[in-house]
Amino acid sequence: MTAAAGPGSEELAQGVLEGRARAIGRAISEVERDSGSVPDILRRLFAQTGRARILGITGPPGAGKSTLVQRLAQAYRRAGHRVGIVAVDPSSPFTGGAILGDRIRMAEIYTDPGVFIRSMATRGTLGGLARATSDAVDVLDAAGFDIILIETVGVGQDEVDIVRAADTTAVVLVPGLGDDIQAIKAGILEIADVFVVNKAEREGADRAVSELSMMLDFAGHPPWRPPIVKTSAPSGSGVPEAVGALEGHGAYLAQSGEGRHRRALRARSRLLALLEDRFRRAVEARAPEPDGLEEAVRAVQERREDPYSAAGRLFDALVRGARGAAAGRPS
Amino acid sequence: MTAAAGPGSEELAQGVLEGRARAIGRAISEVERDSGSVPDILRRLFAQTGRARILGITGPPGAGKSTLVQRLAQAYRRAGHRVGIVAVDPSSPFTGGAILGDRIRMAEIYTDPGVFIRSMATRGTLGGLARATSDAVDVLDAAGFDIILIETVGVGQDEVDIVRAADTTAVVLVPGLGDDIQAIKAGILEIADVFVVNKAEREGADRAVSELSMMLDFAGHPPWRPPIVKTSAPSGSGVPEAVGALEGHGAYLAQSGEGRHRRALRARSRLLALLEDRFRRAVEARAPEPDGLEEAVRAVQERREDPYSAAGRLFDALVRGARGAAAGRPS
Repeated sequence: MTAAAGPGSEELAQGVLEGRARAIGRAISEVERDSGSVPDILRRLFAQTGRARILGITGPPGAGKSTLVQRLAQAYRRAGHRVGIVAVDPSSPFTGGAILGDRIRMAEIYTDPGVFIRSMATRGTLGGLARATSDAVDVLDAAGFDIILIETVGVGQDEVDIVRAADTTAVVLVPGLGDDIQAIKAGILEIADVFVVNKAEREGADRAVSELSMMLDFAGHPPWRPPIVKTSAPSGSGVPEAVGALEGHGAYLAQSGEGRHRRALRARSRLLALLEDRFRRAVEARAPEPDGLEEAVRAVQERREDPYSAAGRLFDALVRGARGAAAGRPS
Repeated sequence: MTAAAGPGSEELAQGVLEGRARAIGRAISEVERDSGSVPDILRRLFAQTGRARILGITGPPGAGKSTLVQRLAQAYRRAGHRVGIVAVDPSSPFTGGAILGDRIRMAEIYTDPGVFIRSMATRGTLGGLARATSDAVDVLDAAGFDIILIETVGVGQDEVDIVRAADTTAVVLVPGLGDDIQAIKAGILEIADVFVVNKAEREGADRAVSELSMMLDFAGHPPWRPPIVKTSAPSGSGVPEAVGALEGHGAYLAQSGEGRHRRALRARSRLLALLEDRFRRAVEARAPEPDGLEEAVRAVQERREDPYSAAGRLFDALVRGARGAAAGRPS
């Protein structure tokens, strides 16, 4: 099924801008499978983006993130906001649009027309999933959702890359993690603007809070010290405090200029990823040519040329205009 | 500390070709920190590579891989081979050259001049670690080691990328993994040419073997069915069988043409990674120019231009010669 750019994209974009759920869902499906119409759809939507507040919710499996996300969505709804949710699971091989799963996981908010929920899972490369997440956030933003929650399952580099699309990120942990807090890769702690100790009804919640607090003491005095909030998602206890912590960070972002700085970094890494994608396609397109990749592979395999020299030659052939600027290293 | 290409590289390469341990160690250090002299060193060594047999040993932490690698190295030594070992830990933040760790882990072979052991750990990106592993293997290959063992700790995509540099890969498991076998990401099982059930003196070894065997039955009839070998590394029991299985796969690679095919794929992915690295450097070098990345970031941030259009424009400015070939997608 190929979706070419054209009147279809225009209609779809119009539907998204009018906030119609079916158009939003279809646009995210296009984004998810990286169809040819994505650049055209995004081009039509992009001027209407940049208004939503984007929140990342991440943490290890079993931390109760889905229930917490549902509670947060309800809290924002009560405050009069429209809420979009993108749930991303980098480790899952299942395709997106896991509607049944969404329905079960977030039953209480699923029928609320002021909430849009969408799951996305690994398809192809992970870089692709970070791109798809950014694009899906743009779709929801253009559709007029004020609050967009990105939920990821996991604690690896993959999740870090995905929640980078957020303005504010909450890392959700649970009591009893104990020494495992150290085992969580440093990267995920570094992206925390807010810590949520969920399942706080369990034994060890206060200990988890004081361990996190000690860890933060250890990190010195950054301009923003992530607050630590205890929640119990099923009962909803602590959820107003969690919203308060998220919004407190939002105020900090606005006042300090850090928010603008983060969005610039995000635009930069997004552009770089799209550029690299284009470059890969260009290399592949020229691979069979006499000065292309396939001949270079043969040269390397037959030891006629080393990989660095071959890459340099290929690069020069491909990027003629950039030859001077590309001299980042001797070769 | 900047190491420029020059007479230093020539001397270093000469030392490597003569098999001198200090030169080998220094060359791998250059490779590890991606110094400017790496292309020059590799260029001087590359014609002398391609002769070693490269074995990947991977599996979950605690599977006893280090002891097994030591036993395999001893077995190959007894057969008259020189053995190079590269131990790669993608999850470790420690820098390479973990000499003390090597000394303790592989005490019995550490003083054997026919064995060279080197640890490498995460520094910077992981793509960088796969590159560094390939380059380190080339150094050891050029230095005349007949057998090169790449040991990785872990079971994720990172490890899969690293052991792709090997001709033959053994996945090491332990009894009692039980249902966890399913939990190991599919990727790591797909790269297994040989399965080793280590710590076979433990209860459940036969069950682990039959579970693996069932899993392989399930996978149908590929041209090579990975043999399953039981070992007990501390006593060395099963190690000759493990060597037999590894060498059996080596014979299969040679006879079927699969070995040549794999080396071509490896040369291809290595070239692509180096090309992408060059492209990133070229983009960064031109970032401050009027048609460069920084202005595009501002345009995206101010919603004057969407990311896809901006990336397309940047790409055209950078890759003038490739404009026609780059039309992989409409934009």
